[in-house]
Amino acid sequence: MTHYDVIVIGGGPTGSVAAGTSKFFYPDRSVAVFRLEKEIVVPCSIPYIFSTLGSVEKNLSSDAGLRERGIDIFHEEVKEIEPKAHRIITSGGEYTYSKLVLATGSLPRRLPLDGLDGEGVFYVKKNADYLRELHRSVMEAVDVAIIGGGFIGVEMADDLLEAGKNVHIVEMLERILPLTFDGDFSGEVQQILEAKGAKIHLGVKAKRVVREGKKVNGVELEGGAVIPADVVIVAAGALPNTELARRAGLRIGERGGIWVDEYMRTSEKDIFAVGDCAERRSFFTQKPIQTFLASVGTREARIAGANLFELKIQKQNTGTVNIFSTSVGGRGFASAGLPEWAARREGFELLVSHVEALDHHPGSLPGSEKVKLKLIFSKDGKRLIGAQLSAGRSAGEMINVIGAIIQSRMTAEEIASMQVGTHPLLTPAPTVYPVIEGAIKVLS
Amino acid sequence: MTHYDVIVIGGGPTGSVAAGTSKFFYPDRSVAVFRLEKEIVVPCSIPYIFSTLGSVEKNLSSDAGLRERGIDIFHEEVKEIEPKAHRIITSGGEYTYSKLVLATGSLPRRLPLDGLDGEGVFYVKKNADYLRELHRSVMEAVDVAIIGGGFIGVEMADDLLEAGKNVHIVEMLERILPLTFDGDFSGEVQQILEAKGAKIHLGVKAKRVVREGKKVNGVELEGGAVIPADVVIVAAGALPNTELARRAGLRIGERGGIWVDEYMRTSEKDIFAVGDCAERRSFFTQKPIQTFLASVGTREARIAGANLFELKIQKQNTGTVNIFSTSVGGRGFASAGLPEWAARREGFELLVSHVEALDHHPGSLPGSEKVKLKLIFSKDGKRLIGAQLSAGRSAGEMINVIGAIIQSRMTAEEIASMQVGTHPLLTPAPTVYPVIEGAIKVLS
Repeated sequence: MTHYDVIVIGGGPTGSVAAGTSKFFYPDRSVAVFRLEKEIVVPCSIPYIFSTLGSVEKNLSSDAGLRERGIDIFHEEVKEIEPKAHRIITSGGEYTYSKLVLATGSLPRRLPLDGLDGEGVFYVKKNADYLRELHRSVMEAVDVAIIGGGFIGVEMADDLLEAGKNVHIVEMLERILPLTFDGDFSGEVQQILEAKGAKIHLGVKAKRVVREGKKVNGVELEGGAVIPADVVIVAAGALPNTELARRAGLRIGERGGIWVDEYMRTSEKDIFAVGDCAERRSFFTQKPIQTFLASVGTREARIAGANLFELKIQKQNTGTVNIFSTSVGGRGFASAGLPEWAARREGFELLVSHVEALDHHPGSLPGSEKVKLKLIFSKDGKRLIGAQLSAGRSAGEMINVIGAIIQSRMTAEEIASMQVGTHPLLTPAPTVYPVIEGAIKVLS
Repeated sequence: MTHYDVIVIGGGPTGSVAAGTSKFFYPDRSVAVFRLEKEIVVPCSIPYIFSTLGSVEKNLSSDAGLRERGIDIFHEEVKEIEPKAHRIITSGGEYTYSKLVLATGSLPRRLPLDGLDGEGVFYVKKNADYLRELHRSVMEAVDVAIIGGGFIGVEMADDLLEAGKNVHIVEMLERILPLTFDGDFSGEVQQILEAKGAKIHLGVKAKRVVREGKKVNGVELEGGAVIPADVVIVAAGALPNTELARRAGLRIGERGGIWVDEYMRTSEKDIFAVGDCAERRSFFTQKPIQTFLASVGTREARIAGANLFELKIQKQNTGTVNIFSTSVGGRGFASAGLPEWAARREGFELLVSHVEALDHHPGSLPGSEKVKLKLIFSKDGKRLIGAQLSAGRSAGEMINVIGAIIQSRMTAEEIASMQVGTHPLLTPAPTVYPVIEGAIKVLS
């Protein structure tokens, strides 16, 4: 029976970072990754395979980095974990470990609709062959219906519109991107997609997939309306993939993820869990939350990888801030911390400010785009707990500035006197730098 | 004699923010700005008037914001300040104040060269008519010589090359951007400019301006070589404009700026000084430093404006981190904190890491650009004290992420487990996010 000091189950970004980080901190330890897929899909850019990338091939990443570091990769299915014996049983044999890291990810949430089974209906799976089939079907389609108006649905819609498809989005809540954004930002995204031709159906559930023989030809909504569709994509969220962990008797958290402590250790001290399969806690409330982001998973993978054999990164895992960004119609949209709706639901008293600026200065410079920022502070203490942003391409890093501010628990007073760098072609003017202006607005 | 509760001397970005902030925090107080210029030039984008903006007109900013807030503007020259009487004497009369804010900025550093006086030689002055004359002369010129390879010289060279001019840069130190960057980053900027056709003369001083009659036709370097020039631009740094302050008996700091305390108060308690005219201290050593950046000035203006009549922003002015960004040939270059050469000169023991990544993921996405990051940590404590960056357009906000990290005095361990948001089209991949990877490299 082969022994590895570290076995990682799962080969997505989180599993890869866990393996790479453990090899970095413990170079003399043997490390193996088990994953079924021979080809690794970059998960975050799956929505862009239709037009922006143009193929699944352009969205594959390589194993070379792991192999160069001396990490073994097994394309075997893990059938069972035996915690007491420190052993896994796979489709190819048995292996023992000193430390095991579960990075089994998430699975698409299934919907209880009639007609979902059969050709022409797809989930968003991180599997190259499955995505090739999706790509082929979509390219032949005229009408595509997307069930779910979250990030993945919205990004796919944007890319499918670029590919010349007729796109419908069905979202059961009252706006698109309902969990991440408040209404004004959701509204801006909606306007952009509609201006590109999308049909967006809000506050209504899909009822069944309408077929003519085997072929999909529509989606019936509650209320009876039927939208045309040659292909249906279900992007209705995800669930932690915890089956192996459950069977191994690991403790499962309240929200269905694998329970972990501060250092990503499960209820078995030699088994760690990281990424979408692990339970997350909120930075603001310490309550368990569901969130599925590679940036959150890779962070957990670094904490786990460093701390497998000794505490190398002792910093407390203070919980998940949730820093998101996306791009729609060439604009960047981003959020960090709690949107206003979520902060109010927690019963927090708030101070909210809104700022607009241009991302070049003077605004007459070519390429200048509007920045729209909303800041959400706790009323007592005026600590920043949330931000929403729409901007140009710099939105992705601008939200990381704000993410750093939230993580260092800065107050409006501290933000008002913080230091930034500015340049006419790269940032808003120093006189109106948005997060500083927004902080000043809640002072006085 | 007219009285104002607040008088600000100087109408650049720093003076404007000082006036605006004081009106925001003390809306019932009367505020006036004194400045000679009728037209306000955006100082940071002066280098772009030749090609990117195309005119001085496009680089003017408006007074409307100040006037709308009820701030009076006087185009009068301030001749004297009388601190005891709380009075200023101007070309138009006399005015009394309760609080005075000096935002008199900086003046171009003069060089002791023969032939500088006369037509065809320009400094970089924040004056619209002067810049119109510079613009006109440059547009008629074939060869332009820039004396000084700092930010302004480099940015002007970039824009003049776009305008089709032959450009020479003369820098007396061994590399361009010598104060802000270490050699590898200076080298990348140099390569870009040379690839665009610039001739860069390093480690040599300009000796005299060669004239044929009144007309400039070259610059003679030490050693005797003559470079051709129809126009000479002197961009050899700046000096604090402290003449009024000196005459008023205010204390002057070691590096020639107006001495200020934690809250930007001068040696006279009712007189504040902000921006380039004020003495700055280093965030890292608390030593006085010379630095001339609008982003530093506007921060000081906010601290002063808020604290004029009571302590509204009590956060300590912990000193200047120095966060810069610039754009050369469409690439972004940026720096925060101490470059390695400066940290070593202070005698600090260092740990330095280098990281490269792409700013999109996967790298096959259109528009993907390389990110090159250097991080400088103190050896004990592994605290981040400096960073240098070359990247695409996101460099400007990426350096602000790092600036926030430096300001919160994060260690490599804390950075290694920090949270960021990522998106395929907007940021590097979560698996290789540069500042996190660079921090991990100095751990283990």
